[in-house]
Amino acid sequence: MGESFGNWSFGDDPGLRKWITTASLACGFHAGDPVTMIEAVDASLEAGIAIGAHPGLPDLLGFGRRVMNISQEDGYAYLLYQVGALSAILASRGAALHHVKPHGALGPMINDSAPLTEALLRVVEEVMDEPLLYWPAGREDSVVITTAQERGIPIVFEFYPDLEYRASGDFVLRRRSAAVQSGDAVTRVQRFLATGEVETVDGTILRLDCHSICIHGDSPTAAEHAAAVACALKEFGYELNAATRASVLAHMT
Amino acid sequence: MGESFGNWSFGDDPGLRKWITTASLACGFHAGDPVTMIEAVDASLEAGIAIGAHPGLPDLLGFGRRVMNISQEDGYAYLLYQVGALSAILASRGAALHHVKPHGALGPMINDSAPLTEALLRVVEEVMDEPLLYWPAGREDSVVITTAQERGIPIVFEFYPDLEYRASGDFVLRRRSAAVQSGDAVTRVQRFLATGEVETVDGTILRLDCHSICIHGDSPTAAEHAAAVACALKEFGYELNAATRASVLAHMT
Amino acid sequence: MGESFGNWSFGDDPGLRKWITTASLACGFHAGDPVTMIEAVDASLEAGIAIGAHPGLPDLLGFGRRVMNISQEDGYAYLLYQVGALSAILASRGAALHHVKPHGALGPMINDSAPLTEALLRVVEEVMDEPLLYWPAGREDSVVITTAQERGIPIVFEFYPDLEYRASGDFVLRRRSAAVQSGDAVTRVQRFLATGEVETVDGTILRLDCHSICIHGDSPTAAEHAAAVACALKEFGYELNAATRASVLAHMT
Amino acid sequence: MGESFGNWSFGDDPGLRKWITTASLACGFHAGDPVTMIEAVDASLEAGIAIGAHPGLPDLLGFGRRVMNISQEDGYAYLLYQVGALSAILASRGAALHHVKPHGALGPMINDSAPLTEALLRVVEEVMDEPLLYWPAGREDSVVITTAQERGIPIVFEFYPDLEYRASGDFVLRRRSAAVQSGDAVTRVQRFLATGEVETVDGTILRLDCHSICIHGDSPTAAEHAAAVACALKEFGYELNAATRASVLAHMT
Repeated sequence: MGESFGNWSFGDDPGLRKWITTASLACGFHAGDPVTMIEAVDASLEAGIAIGAHPGLPDLLGFGRRVMNISQEDGYAYLLYQVGALSAILASRGAALHHVKPHGALGPMINDSAPLTEALLRVVEEVMDEPLLYWPAGREDSVVITTAQERGIPIVFEFYPDLEYRASGDFVLRRRSAAVQSGDAVTRVQRFLATGEVETVDGTILRLDCHSICIHGDSPTAAEHAAAVACALKEFGYELNAATRASVLAHMT
Repeated sequence: MGESFGNWSFGDDPGLRKWITTASLACGFHAGDPVTMIEAVDASLEAGIAIGAHPGLPDLLGFGRRVMNISQEDGYAYLLYQVGALSAILASRGAALHHVKPHGALGPMINDSAPLTEALLRVVEEVMDEPLLYWPAGREDSVVITTAQERGIPIVFEFYPDLEYRASGDFVLRRRSAAVQSGDAVTRVQRFLATGEVETVDGTILRLDCHSICIHGDSPTAAEHAAAVACALKEFGYELNAATRASVLAHMT
Repeated sequence: MGESFGNWSFGDDPGLRKWITTASLACGFHAGDPVTMIEAVDASLEAGIAIGAHPGLPDLLGFGRRVMNISQEDGYAYLLYQVGALSAILASRGAALHHVKPHGALGPMINDSAPLTEALLRVVEEVMDEPLLYWPAGREDSVVITTAQERGIPIVFEFYPDLEYRASGDFVLRRRSAAVQSGDAVTRVQRFLATGEVETVDGTILRLDCHSICIHGDSPTAAEHAAAVACALKEFGYELNAATRASVLAHMT
Repeated sequence: MGESFGNWSFGDDPGLRKWITTASLACGFHAGDPVTMIEAVDASLEAGIAIGAHPGLPDLLGFGRRVMNISQEDGYAYLLYQVGALSAILASRGAALHHVKPHGALGPMINDSAPLTEALLRVVEEVMDEPLLYWPAGREDSVVITTAQERGIPIVFEFYPDLEYRASGDFVLRRRSAAVQSGDAVTRVQRFLATGEVETVDGTILRLDCHSICIHGDSPTAAEHAAAVACALKEFGYELNAATRASVLAHMT
């Protein structure tokens, strides 16, 4: 969320805020200029939504969704700057950062890279008093997950009902998000809640273990989508809350 | 300082660090990408130099030295983002921001504007536990100075021996800094130390009251310049230290 | 038009293209990245629409609508680069630039500046075999108009029914365009067509002489607006065509 | 050349211009803002130097030297915009583009990609009346070379005495160019002129067939380097001239 830029607005953030407990806000590199960030922080705090950082690649033209061959030093600096800026904005409101979740192509880039993992974890540890990381469910072989666990950084695993999964646990990330039929998303969420299973684009079955369900704010149907998912969760008896470190740590053991 | 950007290096920061007690670091908008900022922070901390934020206009092409018609909301957001990012980088090293000093055209723009003054002071108060502002000496009629004093924010007044003053107390800020003869700067500093006076471009005499002498890092002769000024200060019996809030507050009353 | 940027879309360009004869396309500085520009060029050519350049200030964050203190050298270079790039894209399609029309704050900045006027006219003469300039009607005292006439550069004068005029002939340009009631715009256009008069925000009457009626593409109601204005023009017996140099020159004498 | 940006100057272009016949100028994406481009064009024309376009990736922070996962549509648009802008600047001086040579990571990216090759060749054909491409010698298996030859686009092959070659014909491209000892470069050039051979970093021998010797302008020793190479060429009896299509085409058959 918070992915507008200057005069260009993006997504239906007010619509989404009615249904969510937790937001990951763009930090100015792939989207989200300072004015937008502050507006998004203030509106989220007013709505009682926990705020995480969604730092991205320095690529406005590609919305941070194009892999770039950055170094560890670059990665560390870009993450520290962005997460630090959002953290300071929150501190100016007496609030604190809830989590860090890399945006777009930066996620898969870090997922497969020990040097970038070190950059990310160092930033999470340096900026947050109580580090918390968000990561896609289904990536158990990721160096991020192994290393975070070694260092005692809890991870909230996310399920993305608006993306198409591959058998590898990877998913299809398009430059521009397509509209997803809410019916499809609800069906996927209901199946997942009932069985823990997701059907992949290859027709195989993937089992995922997650703490959080993520709706991408740049989809044209995001708000409708979020409403349907929130409703499905309630039908299955879940109460919606922002993740706490305690609950995640309890879940891990 | 810290005004390199990507592959473009700028100024002789290692040379300057031998002579100064306090640095104002660019924060990514007019200069100073995240990698550069972190390098500048680490080198300054190692040299025992106090670090302030030098936030600028979002104008890389013009090095933040072109007046832009930004709103109060813009100004507040640009300042909070930049000062916040640098503050978070410092916090990640266990250090804290020493002061805030607007860069380039942003300074004169704020000097004459009550809405931008409000934006700046709010950021200084929100980001710094112990607010400290740097401002040019000779601007006693500025709304910044009056308002900061009302709100109890101490100001370090600066004298710029490498700029040419006008009779109004204003000075000539060029897009690209010219080399200044160190001899000229030393002469100006010596006269100023002896008499408190500066000769303006109009030939009139200006009396300035200052706590700090600033050398602009982008001048080709900055390091030589800093050495000569440091030497002159010592000759006049001054010991060079970073300003403290206590000393500034004592000086104010 | 063509004011999208990367993933951020902007305006209803397909809707507008049904009603207009001539488009001014953003050139990458205030809006309009290269992919967007090429899409806008191709769609406009297919629709038989004449294409002009709409170069702006290097200020994505402010959408080119914030006055910046640029030099003549800056202005000349920014205009030549942007107009040249669009002209080359058109040439790659066997088409030629129809006109040049500065965007946002650049227009009023040039209107009052002899050095920037020289920058603009030099670019128009250097890039276009048959120079044609667009300028707001009601600015007869502008150095641009006087100088263009001396140099034999024809000017198409524009009337903006979606902006509010001041008695000075100037108009109110907001950072973000407000929705205008089509009824209001139609009323203004009808009155203007019947009498040549516009009522200003001060309640005074302004007489304007124009060759073209401009609809701003970033207003949420732009397409509806354009349809209503096109309809009103037809009711008054006008046939809608892109301006030709010949017709403008004939009108001038 | 022309790789300064705003206040950041880069390279010793005046020094280089004394020794070269042909320059490839940055076009604003990886380096080279419009003011810099125009200055570089005017100085090159005055020195009688043929001017080619050196378009890069939209990555100022990484100086266009970081691979980015751009699409064919992106590549075509970025190249057309940049090459078109430089071409228009040249046309405004009555001059024409001599050649196109992709910068930094864009070269290797295109070298291995049929879609990006199509993007590049289409731009060269669309913008230049007499297409001419520069490409590294030693890449005979490149899809660029095969396709250009099929389409009748002549290629000037370049040898880089200031880079280290690998046995594959590929070379080591660092984010920041290191200073090369002129002695080393001269030794390499002399050996190459005598034998057509280059020693790789692996110690193997590579045979290269080239029309042009390129000196990278961002090396701190570029001008000294260029002087030494020009001298070596003269010692071997070569007369230095900008490549002509006719001479390249003659060489190809």
